[in-house]
Formats: sequence, C-alpha cells, structure tokens
Amino acid sequence: MSLLPASPPLAGESGAGDLPAEFRLIGAHFRPLAGPGALDLTDDAAVFTPPPGRDIVIAADAMVAGVHFLPNDPPDLIARKLLRTNLSDLAAMGAAPLGYLMTTSFPRGTPDRWIAAFARGLAADQAEFGLTLLGGDTTSTPGPLSLSLTILGTIAPGTALRRNGARPGDGLWVSGTIGDGALGLLAARGEIDDAWLADRYRLPQPRLALGQALVGIASACMDVSDGLVQDAGHLARESGCAIEIEAARVPLSPAARAQNRLDLCLTGGDDYELLFSVPIEKENSLIAASRAKCIPVSRIGSFLPGAPHVTVRAPDGAALAFPRGGWSHIP
Amino acid sequence: MSLLPASPPLAGESGAGDLPAEFRLIGAHFRPLAGPGALDLTDDAAVFTPPPGRDIVIAADAMVAGVHFLPNDPPDLIARKLLRTNLSDLAAMGAAPLGYLMTTSFPRGTPDRWIAAFARGLAADQAEFGLTLLGGDTTSTPGPLSLSLTILGTIAPGTALRRNGARPGDGLWVSGTIGDGALGLLAARGEIDDAWLADRYRLPQPRLALGQALVGIASACMDVSDGLVQDAGHLARESGCAIEIEAARVPLSPAARAQNRLDLCLTGGDDYELLFSVPIEKENSLIAASRAKCIPVSRIGSFLPGAPHVTVRAPDGAALAFPRGGWSHIP
Repeated sequence: MSLLPASPPLAGESGAGDLPAEFRLIGAHFRPLAGPGALDLTDDAAVFTPPPGRDIVIAADAMVAGVHFLPNDPPDLIARKLLRTNLSDLAAMGAAPLGYLMTTSFPRGTPDRWIAAFARGLAADQAEFGLTLLGGDTTSTPGPLSLSLTILGTIAPGTALRRNGARPGDGLWVSGTIGDGALGLLAARGEIDDAWLADRYRLPQPRLALGQALVGIASACMDVSDGLVQDAGHLARESGCAIEIEAARVPLSPAARAQNRLDLCLTGGDDYELLFSVPIEKENSLIAASRAKCIPVSRIGSFLPGAPHVTVRAPDGAALAFPRGGWSHIP
Repeated sequence: MSLLPASPPLAGESGAGDLPAEFRLIGAHFRPLAGPGALDLTDDAAVFTPPPGRDIVIAADAMVAGVHFLPNDPPDLIARKLLRTNLSDLAAMGAAPLGYLMTTSFPRGTPDRWIAAFARGLAADQAEFGLTLLGGDTTSTPGPLSLSLTILGTIAPGTALRRNGARPGDGLWVSGTIGDGALGLLAARGEIDDAWLADRYRLPQPRLALGQALVGIASACMDVSDGLVQDAGHLARESGCAIEIEAARVPLSPAARAQNRLDLCLTGGDDYELLFSVPIEKENSLIAASRAKCIPVSRIGSFLPGAPHVTVRAPDGAALAFPRGGWSHIP
C-alpha cells in the first residue's frame, strides 16, 4: 500500500514514468494529512499503539461518482462527505474518532487542482473532528471516481451502542431533522431551489458528541443513511420488536416543511442523523445530554411487543403506506 | 456501513426494492465470512479488543478491473489476490494477520454466482491465513468492478520492519523468485503460453511467515509490488543509501528463465516477494530462518554509502539501463 504514486501493474513494465503528472503530485497533497502511526505514508502499512483500556471501533464506506455524489459536486465537499459518512458510523456506536485509511481510484486526467481541493476538504474535517490519515492507496480507473474510507475509533469496552438492545416500551428518538438529505439531493440537482437543503445533502453533520453522550442512555442506536422507515426496520429486526412512528412527530426543518414531501422525508436517505431507542426512565438523562451537546432530539415513536415491523401513523391514526418503504412492513 | 444491501442514495427514495436481486444476496454470501467483533455485520461498525501488549498494523489497497486484474479472471482468484496483496503489506512489516474490512462496488448485473465464487475465494484464504471479515460496504457502480480492502494485523511494539533502516554494508535480499508476476500477466493475457506463470500472477504468495521471522534480522523491508528496481529505489531513498544489484544474482524461476526477459523481470510488478536488507552479522540467522520457514532467500546486492540511487550491474560490471526504470537512477 502506498498513497504515493504506484504504477498500474497491467502496464507490465511498471514505473513512475508511466503515470500522468497528477498522480505524481498526490503524495504532495496527501502526505500533510498523515498523523502519528502513518510513518509519513512511506512504509507498507501504518503502526499504532491502541489507547490502553479502549476497544477499537472500525467501519468502512465506499462512495462512487454518480451513485453517492454528483460528479460535479465541489471536490472538498465530496472529501468531507466521504469522511463524515464514516464518522457517522462511529457516532452511531458511541465511539470517538482515532484515524482513517482511504483508497482513491481517480479517472485519468483528474486535474491536480481537483485533487488539491479534495485534500483541503479532508484537512478541514481532520481539524474539526480530531483525526488523521493513517494510510491508503491511490490508483487510476477507467470508470468513475471511486472512493473507499476505513474509519477507526475507540470506545470503553462493552459500551458500544448496538442495534439489538431496544425493548418494548422504549421510545424511538431521532436527532436533528429528517428529510433534508433527500430533498437536498433534489436541490443539488437543481430540481428544487434551496441552497440550504443542497448543503445538507453535500455536507452531513456526524453526531459524534451526541453518540458518545448516548452511551448509558440509549438501548439501541444507528445512523439514518438509507431512509428513516427502512433504517427503523433494521432496529426493529435486530431488537426483535415492532415500531410505531407518529408521522407528525418526525422533526422537519423549515426548508423541508416548505417542500411538503413527507413521503420523501420519511423514506429518503442521506440524513446521517442518529436513530435510537431510550427507556422511559432514561428520558430525563437524554434531554440533559441533548441540551449539553446543543443537538436537538425528538421522540417520534415507540417500540412495541410483536413481530419486527414498522408502522407509520398519520395524525388520524391511519397507517401510511409508502410505495418503496424498503424492508418495513405496513400492515 | 453495512455489507448488507444498501440502496443507492441517488435514487432519492431509497429502499431495498430498488436493488437488483443479486445485491439482496450479498449479505448471504458475506455474512458467513464474519468473525468475532464483526457483530454479524448487522451494526454500523465492528468492535474488537486489541490483543494486549501488541501494536496494530493497518494498510489498505484498492483493485480495479482492467487495471489490477483482468475482468475475466476467475472471481475466487480476484478475491484471493485482493486479500493477498494486502497480506503482503503485513508480511513486509513483520506483522501477523488479525482481520479485514472490504468495500465492493459491483457493476449492475453482476451474477449472483460470480459473487458467490468471489466469497468462496475469500473463505479459502481466511482459512489459510487465519483471519476473518470485520465489516465493509457494498455498493453498485456504473463503472468497472472496484474493490478496496483494509487489512489489520498485530506486532510486538517497536519491532515493525520499516523501509528506512538499511545501512551501508548491509546485503540486499529477496525472497522466492522475481519476474513471475509480470510474465504471468503476459501469460494470463495469452501472449505467452505458460499456465504456471499465469497462476503466479493471479495468486501471489504473501510471505507472512518469513516476514515475521525477519523481525530482529532484517534492518529494512518492503514487498515487491511495483517492480524490483523501482521498489529497491524506495529502500534506497528511505534508508539514505545507494544500492547495487547484481543482475545475475536475481533469482528467476525456471519458467521465467525460459522466457529470457530479464528487463521485464527486473522492472515488472506483482511479485509480492519480500525485499529486505540484512547486516552481515545477521546472515546466518537469516539462512536459518529461511530454512525453518521453507522460503528461499537470495542475496542480490548491497547497500553502499552515497546518494540514494539504484544501479543494476551485468556480469561484466556494466550498468544496465532500463527504458522505464521508475524512480531508479542509472548513472
């Protein structure tokens, strides 16, 4: 592995001389991102001593141009979204960030200034979230830009938030607002006119501080990446409970409310808010944690006895049906 | 993160219903690969307790169809090569395998039987090398199959083999034979007729046992992935030494010798042998380790005082020049 230029092995006779000029410069852009343990990105691997008394939390996410972001999105925001979607996985476990590895497959002809801006985005979020680059690999691709990031975090042993801990009677809670990601994609595509929503799509806010505060409070937790209803289905399945969501309680931003697309808000993806269960007796602790971290939380439903399924109820009590509700089952 | 199906966020309204049938089955193929800490691949991240008294070694490599392997290579061998190139990075550091995360971007329409065979390849090498899947992500791509793997290993603190430890007077050594990878690519493409060489290209042998035995013996080490001459240049640069390689001492397999392509053997990639420096007083220990692990090693040159560069000498003492010798500088 090396984030420094490596020649494409299919060239048969390899050598840096085979590489387009921009790949020679990648080392210059990425090396300043390297932290302790990365060995200046000059060795085959990184080496670090795990923080004593902590478990390691680790996750990986891939992003492909045209699938997970728009090819003409600003490069610094693509980089930050890549890092933030992974940080959101740490938040969902209640973990603190430690470092990351990244592999990048750039189309030939990617301009150096594009890669420089991409690296600046990573640098900005490294500073904001307190982590550094440990290693990775840079290759070329005949296809679209493909990115993969592995995030490492730490947590006190035995305290990680799981998806399987909710029990009947627990409340279902969510942080922030729901639906801005899916509406933001429409805005980023120019289908609706709202720059704030487009920003919400391009730059999610991983709820790391809240996730860490939920340790000892939430009985189950995950992040909302594939849509509220579908992701609630994962909590229901893993915890072995039914879930009822009251549609009117799902928190919408003013911008989302103005679009009047409740169906999209409830089923669209890319929110990167936390979805979690809290026993009744822990609700006061939750409210205090929410205030301390300045991250709003809303109770949107309940866990009930019964086979795993998700019901979304309108204010009149009717069950709402969604054309593509994913895994959820609407009776 | 989830190795289970996740819908493409650009669908706006996400849901498993959007996914081609094959993606629904990926969970079925990958979940049996999961080990302790992976939480059955149902949570946002994996959690594990680092082995006490060990440092963590971590590296990531990406592979793209048409760049790092041939699109019609057998899927089980693509999977095993992905895992083995990463294991080779652990070998180069002297580390023992612990686990891995993987992100896969499959073209739409990838047959289920292809993914099943890919997973069988991983299972075979997990058993052979003693590690398990910790997590990852599965997405679709409009481009070629793109794979990324992050490997984790462990090592006693302070003992990792680096590239910067060689000193003038040390010998330059290599394991196994050199050039089979580059010639094997020609064979895999049908340009030469040699099934053994094609296998060497498709299924590298990570030198994990030798790498671990080199701790305390080698003063610097790396794996040969980008070609012997170019990779020797990395050792020269990081260690601040000159290197002289005697071309006649570079070990070639009988199959490679028969092809009579010394230039390609010395500069081609994909060998995944270890290239390392050994002080004279440690040579007996090296020979003993080589015999104990049944992995042949050959002294192919020396580290010398002087500015970092690599000279390859023919038997008559003349410096050989290579049209594309990469970083190396031939005086």
